[in-house]
Amino acid sequence: MEPLDYLAQERSMASFDVEEMKVVWAGSRHAYELSDRCSRLVASDPVFQKDNRTTLSRKELFKDTLRKTAHAVKRTVELNLSEEESLTLWSYVDQPAYANLHWGMFIPAIEGQGTEEQKQKWLPMAYKMQIIGCYAQTELGHGSNVQGLETTATFDPETDEFVIHSPTLTSSKWWPGGLGKVSTHAVVYARLITNGQDHGVQGFIVQLRSLDDHSPLPGITVGDIGMKFGSGAYNSMDNGVLRFDHVRIPRNQMLMRVSQVTREGKYVQSDVPRQLLYGTMVSVRQIIVSESSIALSRAVCIATRYSAVRRQFGSQNGGPETQVINYKTQQSRLFPLLASAYAFRFAGEWLQWLYTDVTKRLQANDFSTLPEVHACTAGLKSITTSATADAIEECRKLCGGHGYLSCSGLPELFAVYIPNCTYEGDNIVLLLQVARILMKTVSQLVSGKKPLGTTAYLGRVEHLMQCHCEVQRAEDWLKPSVILEAFEARAARMSVACAKTLSGFSNLEEGFAEISSDLVEAAVAHCQLIIVSKFIEKLQQEIPGKGVKTQLENLCNVYALSLLRKHLGDFVSTGCITPEQGALANEQLRLLYSQVRPNAVALVDAFNHTDHYLGSVLGRYDGNVYQKLYDEAWKSPLNDTDVPDGYHEYIRPFLKQHFHTARL
Amino acid sequence: MEPLDYLAQERSMASFDVEEMKVVWAGSRHAYELSDRCSRLVASDPVFQKDNRTTLSRKELFKDTLRKTAHAVKRTVELNLSEEESLTLWSYVDQPAYANLHWGMFIPAIEGQGTEEQKQKWLPMAYKMQIIGCYAQTELGHGSNVQGLETTATFDPETDEFVIHSPTLTSSKWWPGGLGKVSTHAVVYARLITNGQDHGVQGFIVQLRSLDDHSPLPGITVGDIGMKFGSGAYNSMDNGVLRFDHVRIPRNQMLMRVSQVTREGKYVQSDVPRQLLYGTMVSVRQIIVSESSIALSRAVCIATRYSAVRRQFGSQNGGPETQVINYKTQQSRLFPLLASAYAFRFAGEWLQWLYTDVTKRLQANDFSTLPEVHACTAGLKSITTSATADAIEECRKLCGGHGYLSCSGLPELFAVYIPNCTYEGDNIVLLLQVARILMKTVSQLVSGKKPLGTTAYLGRVEHLMQCHCEVQRAEDWLKPSVILEAFEARAARMSVACAKTLSGFSNLEEGFAEISSDLVEAAVAHCQLIIVSKFIEKLQQEIPGKGVKTQLENLCNVYALSLLRKHLGDFVSTGCITPEQGALANEQLRLLYSQVRPNAVALVDAFNHTDHYLGSVLGRYDGNVYQKLYDEAWKSPLNDTDVPDGYHEYIRPFLKQHFHTARL
Repeated sequence: MEPLDYLAQERSMASFDVEEMKVVWAGSRHAYELSDRCSRLVASDPVFQKDNRTTLSRKELFKDTLRKTAHAVKRTVELNLSEEESLTLWSYVDQPAYANLHWGMFIPAIEGQGTEEQKQKWLPMAYKMQIIGCYAQTELGHGSNVQGLETTATFDPETDEFVIHSPTLTSSKWWPGGLGKVSTHAVVYARLITNGQDHGVQGFIVQLRSLDDHSPLPGITVGDIGMKFGSGAYNSMDNGVLRFDHVRIPRNQMLMRVSQVTREGKYVQSDVPRQLLYGTMVSVRQIIVSESSIALSRAVCIATRYSAVRRQFGSQNGGPETQVINYKTQQSRLFPLLASAYAFRFAGEWLQWLYTDVTKRLQANDFSTLPEVHACTAGLKSITTSATADAIEECRKLCGGHGYLSCSGLPELFAVYIPNCTYEGDNIVLLLQVARILMKTVSQLVSGKKPLGTTAYLGRVEHLMQCHCEVQRAEDWLKPSVILEAFEARAARMSVACAKTLSGFSNLEEGFAEISSDLVEAAVAHCQLIIVSKFIEKLQQEIPGKGVKTQLENLCNVYALSLLRKHLGDFVSTGCITPEQGALANEQLRLLYSQVRPNAVALVDAFNHTDHYLGSVLGRYDGNVYQKLYDEAWKSPLNDTDVPDGYHEYIRPFLKQHFHTARL
Repeated sequence: MEPLDYLAQERSMASFDVEEMKVVWAGSRHAYELSDRCSRLVASDPVFQKDNRTTLSRKELFKDTLRKTAHAVKRTVELNLSEEESLTLWSYVDQPAYANLHWGMFIPAIEGQGTEEQKQKWLPMAYKMQIIGCYAQTELGHGSNVQGLETTATFDPETDEFVIHSPTLTSSKWWPGGLGKVSTHAVVYARLITNGQDHGVQGFIVQLRSLDDHSPLPGITVGDIGMKFGSGAYNSMDNGVLRFDHVRIPRNQMLMRVSQVTREGKYVQSDVPRQLLYGTMVSVRQIIVSESSIALSRAVCIATRYSAVRRQFGSQNGGPETQVINYKTQQSRLFPLLASAYAFRFAGEWLQWLYTDVTKRLQANDFSTLPEVHACTAGLKSITTSATADAIEECRKLCGGHGYLSCSGLPELFAVYIPNCTYEGDNIVLLLQVARILMKTVSQLVSGKKPLGTTAYLGRVEHLMQCHCEVQRAEDWLKPSVILEAFEARAARMSVACAKTLSGFSNLEEGFAEISSDLVEAAVAHCQLIIVSKFIEKLQQEIPGKGVKTQLENLCNVYALSLLRKHLGDFVSTGCITPEQGALANEQLRLLYSQVRPNAVALVDAFNHTDHYLGSVLGRYDGNVYQKLYDEAWKSPLNDTDVPDGYHEYIRPFLKQHFHTARL
């Protein structure tokens, strides 16, 4: 018997090779096979089952997370997985846990900021998980402003120790994942004070808990900070609070690659740039960009499949109703998100290349591309995560009422995703950093300095300020050069306009503060240009597989033209395009939707998500949505009994008594 | 000793009479006193305490809700509250429960669609809660398309009964609140079939559960549909699933005001319009608009107070850092939402008046204004709820990382609010209904038919198509007539452009489908115009209290000009304003923000929300945020013990064993 597939008809409409698209999406055949194997390993393992996650109490959820983490390590050993395989397997477990911070921030912080000696001492223990660490930077009163952290590390030359202390309530460490209940150690960021002098923020390795019985060490107050957004979601993580009461650590537990404190208490700086201190954050931001496309692809996959299953209105002569995916209102909301998933994927791929490149350079003491990497990771982190957070919620709305059920998978996906907009740099603060770089670049143009990398287009600012979009018919909008120039002109003109306004202020900082909203928009325009241009560059590579390239071209055009529609005010008011050209772009966009439509389900199949990973009744591969929704309902804890707990005390008295009351 | 007030300085800056603004916000002195009294009653009652709600299991939360509902009824009786008082008290309990549906939909459905005889039979029992009812319309497969409901009510002339039946899986009733575990009765919407003929959807009163032991009656399968978005939030409600297996009810349990079935099975229609059938939905939509401003005001109040407490960056010479509310990026995101809260409040006030007016007319069999009420409730419901849902999440982001904690109150507020975008009419579907009315109005202009009510401006379409905005300096944007004409011109031109495009299609329905996204945008422009114009009308009334009117004028201008900024593409590409005028609007908007800034905290104080109602550590009246966040953390269930459950099984083995593994 054929397996049930309510979406078979949809799949038969696709005009491209889905298997080849899977490889393009994954980045390489190797990456595809790796993720395919690991996702199936997780999906078939009962320990990694996750459907009941939203009904667990906080304690149950936390214990479940500890269990899954331990099981993942066990499987890693049993299957003799490589580092790459075990990381991939862990990503499909899909439950935030202390291990993310231990491997993703604690170890990299030591790797990046520790001396050779420090690395030799601490890393072997950390790799074996004989110690478990977290990254304790953010405080109750300071997140974005790292330089404003209040925790102090005062050198005591008498004992050759640092005294770590929380001088105020707001200096309490707050938010670090893995800190609350698990970590035995932390890299703690604190103000280094020697001889009464404040040298700014440095990292220190501090032990928090006894390795014998896990109790907090003397002087350490530590705990979980409580419930967070949603059920399930990030509540699997023990984000923590931590206070120090004059805790002493040996001098050699300050991470000393960037600067050192000598036995005498003298502060010495190396010639490595201070930015390296925040290298861990740059690395994490780059990963966040890559992961944004994954989160977005999950939401889009759910919404696309369910939009093909769901029918509403439009029945003719008693025939079936119209699939909601056929409605233009649905397409105009859904397909730009589908296109964004692919766009972010390729932007992430490029950023990963850029990051690998800079890492190599850093090892050779070449710091020249560090500012470019910093700007790109900050800007792309900001716009991809903001767009993804909004998109997940939009996908939920695109599923109608049923998207509100936890079993749709979308509420938990949203709740677990949104902190990406805040952690590792608040998205608005990051855009302002990008805007600063743009303003600096524009101001240096007069001196003849040629901008490089992603700001290179500003070198053609004279042309871009006066060029006219050549679109005369809707199909002219399909030319990559036309799209690229429109996006370059818009970004350049918005930056130049800001620079011009700024020049009217006698105090530059005041001006910057005053027009910061416009600066944020200029930064967004710049970052959107990067994503559009990286998508176009991707299409200039050879892409095998029947029809694959055509699909990607359509998606690239949908991405660019839907942005143009959304930000029409930018394009028209800067004179980059005329209102008529805007209307033609809109017309072309509708034609593109018609071309995406028959391929939509296949395009989300190409993400190769297992039903386990999606965790969504609405997004099931086989489209058997209604039966499964119905079956799922009966698992509600409230259905354990016909008559609910509380009936006798709180309902029956109403039904049985004749009291006289007005309305409730 | 003076009570602690970290926001005292903020409050002292206000340049208006806050007490008078409270009255304006409430609508009248009576309404203010009513809500003030009731909110304090609830806040001071330990049974209504709600801070631990997000940590309760589903069963605990549901029982807690039953308890609170019963307690609210008890207090109503003890305090001899009027209907108005008890409804207000209940709204401050702030926990969705079956009672909302019993009083808000079950009873109104009978009141609106029942005959006198039916009302006399059922309403007294319902008022006394001797029976508890819900509103069973939506099905698993049909939400928006009410005419597509599948449940059948077949008349059996032999027994003088209707046979209620669920013929398919997708015909299962799905979502009705109060259905899952509580309701003894329901108004069930089903297809009426007599003599093999389908007469479309009608309402029927059906008993679901035994009044003796609460068990489901024979032929009835009923239960809860499971977890929904978030923790706490709407999980206090027993949204239900319901199936009928040939359940028989007497003929007189069909609600027969609009149409009747005779003893012989003859179907007869009254001369009351069929729209009355959906009168309950119209009434509920009008209430939803009023409530949108409340939900929005809570989020804005939290974000504004915390933005005044929180400081980040900008410390000079070791002084305090800058309050984040002083940043223009914060202001440009927050103040438009503050303005929207007031704008929606006044729009809701007007809609309530319109609804009361139409209700009076209906009683006198005057159905003339029914289409206007339908269009306004549909359109305003759509845009106020969409804007409010987005705004709550935006306010959460404006609180930085701490907004992600449940104790900020914002996650739960978001989760409980968002179904407003879907229930009682999906927001996009509703906008398309508005667009239909707009297209009809435009097409009738040629025949000389004068549009009335909120579409009256379309009667001046010739002027609006060619008028030029007269703004030359930023302050010109402060003139109400200038703002109004710009919004009218934009709405008119977008409608006319759609009508023109539609006229190019040979098949109107196909054209409507093809350009539905543009139609949605035209409808949005029309609805935003309504809100702007009602705000301006409000300002033309006498408003007592020092400085109150000035504040409202500022907010009205912020609302309008921030919309203009957001939809700049509409205004510029339709030629309603020039890009330069757009830039001047932006300049004026920044000036307005500076005027709102010193009044911001007082403007949210005017909402008069108790700390209990806000349920937010970040939004506390006294601004003592950090101490309370810190105290709150220790209540986390994970902090019951230092060493978490699971440590011995899942963490200690790592720390104690020397296994060799690669990365996790």
